[in-house]
Order: sequence, then C-alpha cells, then structure tokens
Amino acid sequence: MNERVWLRTLEQRAHPQTTALLVLDMLKANPDAPPSMDIPRIKGPLHHLIQLIESGRRVSLPIIYVRNSHSDWTVLPNLRHAWSSQPNYHPQHYAEGTRAVEFHDGVEPKEGEAILIKHSYSPFAHGPLDLMLRCRGIKTVLLIGGAVMGAVEAAAKECFVRGYYLVIVSDCVVPSSGPDFDIVTDQAADRLGAIVASSEEIIRIWDALPPTEKGAPT
Amino acid sequence: MNERVWLRTLEQRAHPQTTALLVLDMLKANPDAPPSMDIPRIKGPLHHLIQLIESGRRVSLPIIYVRNSHSDWTVLPNLRHAWSSQPNYHPQHYAEGTRAVEFHDGVEPKEGEAILIKHSYSPFAHGPLDLMLRCRGIKTVLLIGGAVMGAVEAAAKECFVRGYYLVIVSDCVVPSSGPDFDIVTDQAADRLGAIVASSEEIIRIWDALPPTEKGAPT
Amino acid sequence: MNERVWLRTLEQRAHPQTTALLVLDMLKANPDAPPSMDIPRIKGPLHHLIQLIESGRRVSLPIIYVRNSHSDWTVLPNLRHAWSSQPNYHPQHYAEGTRAVEFHDGVEPKEGEAILIKHSYSPFAHGPLDLMLRCRGIKTVLLIGGAVMGAVEAAAKECFVRGYYLVIVSDCVVPSSGPDFDIVTDQAADRLGAIVASSEEIIRIWDALPPTEKGAPT
Amino acid sequence: MNERVWLRTLEQRAHPQTTALLVLDMLKANPDAPPSMDIPRIKGPLHHLIQLIESGRRVSLPIIYVRNSHSDWTVLPNLRHAWSSQPNYHPQHYAEGTRAVEFHDGVEPKEGEAILIKHSYSPFAHGPLDLMLRCRGIKTVLLIGGAVMGAVEAAAKECFVRGYYLVIVSDCVVPSSGPDFDIVTDQAADRLGAIVASSEEIIRIWDALPPTEKGAPT
Repeated sequence: MNERVWLRTLEQRAHPQTTALLVLDMLKANPDAPPSMDIPRIKGPLHHLIQLIESGRRVSLPIIYVRNSHSDWTVLPNLRHAWSSQPNYHPQHYAEGTRAVEFHDGVEPKEGEAILIKHSYSPFAHGPLDLMLRCRGIKTVLLIGGAVMGAVEAAAKECFVRGYYLVIVSDCVVPSSGPDFDIVTDQAADRLGAIVASSEEIIRIWDALPPTEKGAPT
Repeated sequence: MNERVWLRTLEQRAHPQTTALLVLDMLKANPDAPPSMDIPRIKGPLHHLIQLIESGRRVSLPIIYVRNSHSDWTVLPNLRHAWSSQPNYHPQHYAEGTRAVEFHDGVEPKEGEAILIKHSYSPFAHGPLDLMLRCRGIKTVLLIGGAVMGAVEAAAKECFVRGYYLVIVSDCVVPSSGPDFDIVTDQAADRLGAIVASSEEIIRIWDALPPTEKGAPT
Repeated sequence: MNERVWLRTLEQRAHPQTTALLVLDMLKANPDAPPSMDIPRIKGPLHHLIQLIESGRRVSLPIIYVRNSHSDWTVLPNLRHAWSSQPNYHPQHYAEGTRAVEFHDGVEPKEGEAILIKHSYSPFAHGPLDLMLRCRGIKTVLLIGGAVMGAVEAAAKECFVRGYYLVIVSDCVVPSSGPDFDIVTDQAADRLGAIVASSEEIIRIWDALPPTEKGAPT
Repeated sequence: MNERVWLRTLEQRAHPQTTALLVLDMLKANPDAPPSMDIPRIKGPLHHLIQLIESGRRVSLPIIYVRNSHSDWTVLPNLRHAWSSQPNYHPQHYAEGTRAVEFHDGVEPKEGEAILIKHSYSPFAHGPLDLMLRCRGIKTVLLIGGAVMGAVEAAAKECFVRGYYLVIVSDCVVPSSGPDFDIVTDQAADRLGAIVASSEEIIRIWDALPPTEKGAPT
C-alpha cells in the first residue's frame, strides 16, 4: 500500500482488480417486513444498488455483503439498553432464523461473493473485513446500502483509517438526499478524500473496460 | 460488563469510579496558531472544557487527552492524499516538535492523567485506548473536545461498539450548535443511547458527591 | 475488570458465572479423516475433552467452539505459501462443505453454545471472540483442544494480553505431554500466571457447586 | 498484498524496500541492571544484533524498536497478578523514567527509525505496529531481540496472521540455542513458513545489493 501514485480519479478507484463493493445492511431488519420494493425509503436506492451489483459482476468485481446477526453472545449491555428504547423493540432483534436477517428482495449473494457477519455499527470491529480486503488486494472500497449516518458513515471513516480509498455511491445509499446525506458526503469528500459518484457513472466506466482489465473470476 | 443494571441516568454515567473523560483533539493543529482563546469557534467550548476538567479532578476522575501525532511511519497514502487537497497543507502536518501537536492553551495534562497518541480519525484504531479503559474499570465515556462530525462522532460509535455508555457534553464540543451538532447528537441519542448533557449539569452532580463516592487518587 | 481481588485459585477460575470454555480446533482437518477415536494422538485428549464439556453443561458453563474456515477471501499469500510446503497440501484446505471443517466425532455444539469461525492461528484476530467474552462477563478462559504449540499457545498469550485469567486443562490439549507440552505450560504458568490443571480437578469443583452458584441457563 | 509471487528466498525477504527489522524488547528491564554486555545470556545476541542494525542502516532498512512501558493505565489485573509472583517484583515494573525502560547499551534508535511502545507480550495488540508496517509497504518482518518463547514467538504468529513473511535471525534472539529456541524456530519454519537465518547470511545479502536496490532514505 505504499504506492506512490494516489488513486485520484473515479476510473482508478473503480478498477475491478483493486476495488471491492461493500453492500451495507441491506436486510429486512424487521420480522414482519413488507416486500422491500414496497418500502418507500428503500425502493429507489435498492433499485440502483441491484443494478450496480449486476454490472459489477460483469467485470468480476469482488463483492461483500454485510449482514447483522445477534444473540446473547454478541449484545453488550449498552447495545441492549439502546435497543430497548427503540419503538417496536423485541429481544430477538436480528436473531438468526428470523426474517429480520434476510437480505432485501433482489439482493442475492452468489457463489464466490462474500457475506460478512457483523455485530455492531461497525463493519470492521470484531470481524474479518480488513483481512478479506487484504486477501483480495483491495485499495478502494465502494460503499452502498446502509443508513447514511449509520453504517455508511462508520464504514467510510473505518476504511479511511485502514488505508482504503473511498467511493460513496450517491444513489445507492439510504437516504440518497437530504441533510444527513449532505453532511455525511460533504464530510467524506472534504476530510476523507472520498469521491461521491452515481451508479450510472461507475457502470459507464465498467462497461468501457477492455476484457483484460476486468477482475479475475474466482 | 455483564451487569444487569443498565446505566440509564446521568448520575450513573458521571460516577467517577466507572467513568472517564475523553478529551479529543484539543491541539493547536497549526504551526502558526494564534492564542487559543482568540479563535472564535474554539473559545466557548474550550472555556467550558477547562472548567469540566478542573471539576473532574476534584472527584479524581480518570482523564485521557487524545493527541494526534504523525510521521512517515503513520501516514497512509490515502491520508496523505486527503490532506494534500486541504488548503494550507504542509507535509509536516502534526509532526512531533511542531506547535501543531501542542495542546490548546489551558489544556494541561497533570501527573496521573493519560495522553493517548492517535494516528487517525479514530481514537481506538491502532492504539491502547480500549486497554486503558479496561484497566481503569471504565463503563461510561464522557466525550469532549474534537470536531463534532469528526473525532466526536467517530469516538461515539467506537465506544458504543466496545460496550461503553456515552455522554456527549454539549457545550464542550466543536461546534456546540448548528446542523452538524444536531445531526450527530440526535443520532447518538437515538441510536447509541447517548445522553447529551451540559458541563454545568455534570459539574453539579460531581459537586454533590459524598467523599466516599469520589474516584481513588492515582 | 478492575476488580481488586485477583483470581488466584482454581475454584475462582472455574466459576461458571465468570468462566468460559474455549474448545480450540477440534476439527477433522482432513477430508479423508478416519473416525476421530482411531487417531492415536487425538484419542486421549478427545475423550477427556468430551467429558469436560458434558460436566460444564451441567453447571451452565458458557462454551465456545473455535472452527477454522477458509476461502480465497481469507487466505493471505504468506499463509498459502506456508500451506503449500506441507505434505498433502490441497488448495481447498479448510473449505466450507468439506469434511475437514467438521468437528471431531463426539464434539457437538448445542443450542445456546457458540461457534467461533477463525481464519488463522489466532482465535482473537479478525473475529468477535473478545466481544463474546465481554458479553458474557467472562474473567477466566479454560483452554482445551488445539495443538499445544499452535492454537493453545497463541490463545493463551492473546487471552492474557486482553485481561483474561487462564487455565490450561492438561489432559485435554494435543499433545498432553512431551517437550512441546512442557515448554508451553511452563511458560504459561510462569509468565502468564496460568493454572495448569486436569479435567478431573475441574469437574470435581463443578460437581461440588451449590445450585445457586451455577451459571444461568441461556 | 495479493502478489502472485511468493517471497520464498532469503534474498526476497531481506529486500530493504519491502522489509522491516523488528527489534523486540531490548530493554534493561531492571532498574538495577548491570552493563548489558556483562549479562551472559544477552551478550552474544546483543553483539550480533547491533551489527545487524548497523548493516541494515547502510541499505536504509526501516527499523522499529519495540519498547515496553507500563503504568496504572495499562496493567490489567491479570498482568499485575502474574507479575506479582515473579521474584524481585516491584510495582513500578517498566515505569517511564526508570532505567528499566532504557534500551540495552549499544541499541540506539536514530532519527527516522521508529520506537513502538507496547503494553503486553504482543507487539501488535493495542498499538500501531500494523499501521506502521503498511505505511512503509512492508511484506517481510525480520525478528530480532526478545525472549524466544515470549516476544519472538508471539510476534512471529501475529505477523503471520496479518500477512507478513517472516525471518527469524537465529543469532540475534535470546537465547540463540537450546530447547526453547529449537521448538520455536522449528514451529515457525514448519507452520508459519519462516526462514531461520544467521545475521551473517543477511548482512552478506545486503552488502551485495546494487545502490538502486537499497531502501529510500527517510
């Protein structure tokens, strides 16, 4: 990672041989969740996110799906307390075997793609994400999914402090506009050197790649 | 940390025997920094922060001052790149021996208090903060100093995922009002179970403590 | 963890309310593994280990089974290289879905017990073990299974640096005698403050516990 | 780190542009320590180690000196307990300002070299070592100094699980022969893919390097 050449451009940061797509928290979250496309705040980002994943697969991009999972082994007292003040709290929050830990409709990891279990806000804490990124020689992380002030913001700072370049895909995070979105993306661009780009811009780069520049099938 | 009794109240979370004060990033930052009290955005928070530290000392509160320090051994390429786009960037940013790594005027760690060197946004990454909090039996962290969307927000999430209860001291962070402040404190209160309280409320609790409830002098 | 009272005795360190059993690497490891009890170096330790687990269950001891799992997402080049020089190396070493990642015959995690996936020598690196121990209020770790100079030794040092007291169960590690065993247990006792005890000694303590001192069923 | 070409040979692993020298625990350790060269078990390794450092400097090798440091902020109860059973224990063990935390005579870090403070057996836990190695683009770590069954063995496993290739310099560790040395180096060679080589072999490689292959002066 001591390359002298910084990855400044979106073309460099979208390159499938050194870039991974991190799909944050696209879970139903609720045992009684309606079909994902019927949830207004999810519908738009989910649509773009699914298209981005499909385009990424065509260039053999490494894809990691982050999934919450909880049990008595992973819920610290302060987390239990924080949850308990949420409306509709139930003790089996994100328990394995419930509909809450299923991916949103249309988000379906394939053979060779990775699922990362996480037990907190942070996709890096208490898990192998950094190992996985190193194993694949990743230099840039594309962030999609997630709550923009929650998992996206946390993942951005944590990628940054571990040396990864960042792209936040503007129409694939939740929400994709508004004050939270503006504050998080402005901060990421200004302080973390992140590029904020649309899925369309990225797909266009991938579609233009010569075959030899695509990632290696796993 | 498996206590069955959650720390719900400010009284519980301010208790000097299980609480630490984390003073984030109160550095001059700039080799040509003017006197700290002449910097408009710092002046108010710094005044309250110094008073809080002094009150904390009267109840033997554990205090940790977080300080940035950088050299070629700690600046990853992506950080160098992000810095390079800042106005007034110079390669010796946060270098030891420069005025940039001095604490703001009036912030003076005393014998028995700790200085934590950090090399990134995160006060936990790449350093002993979690070890230090465990060593002192800390359950709650009081956050002061820092940039509210930077170190404060990062520290809040990182404390949370490691099991610590949180208090954000509203008039001791930078800035102490405005959209960044509102979004960060709303998110912390709502999602991380943080209490947002003024330095005056906390000092009042400490002043009312019977001598036996104060922390042990170190 | 800042208790003033050190856990000096085996009785203190075996207490089911603050102790966890860490079962290291009891996997078939080989896709063509014979029945576990037919493997001479495994047979003795496995027999004692199964008895210890069953006794632990009677006092509701938290039990964690550590299991290797590997794919192209987790094998770093240096690990691949080290593996490649082993006799009988095959690229699917510890791949999910193979017999290699099955537990040895007789080691069968039950509902409420935990399985920890690891991707290296270390049971702490790149995973949630520390989080899990904190969640359950664990102060002491009982180490069983594993290769004594491999996972046992690594786990002992890593538990130690995170503040956990240690018991190495002498007849439940592999091998249970010989120079490797002597050097590792002497070092652990002398430098890490570990107690080295037999499964029989520990079971006797558990059998003598009054019902109120047993762990809470999960 | 996803290079397809493994670093198999000592020449590859000694290359100053991707290799760091990790000097473990060469501290006086005792407030009343005699001159280092008067300590029989230290004398031989120290002599070779100083020569290796000097040779490393001639090829601009990155050098990191690991140094223990302790206070009430870093000594966990289990560590305090383990220490307390050592002969000659005193509560100020490895306290800053004492002779115990001085480097052995002849070990003198220079400008541009790094000192890494550690608070436990492990040079990686609770500190920035991994960050530092990444920052300098390091692929191989040369281990010298330390107690062979203590810091050397711990550092070897921890480097390994983070992806670094290993060289243990046989005549620069303490002790440099005997059963502990044999077990640790056999295990490292066999399981961690480490190369065990003498300082003379390494110096010979460095001395033969053309100027363009030497590390960049910092």
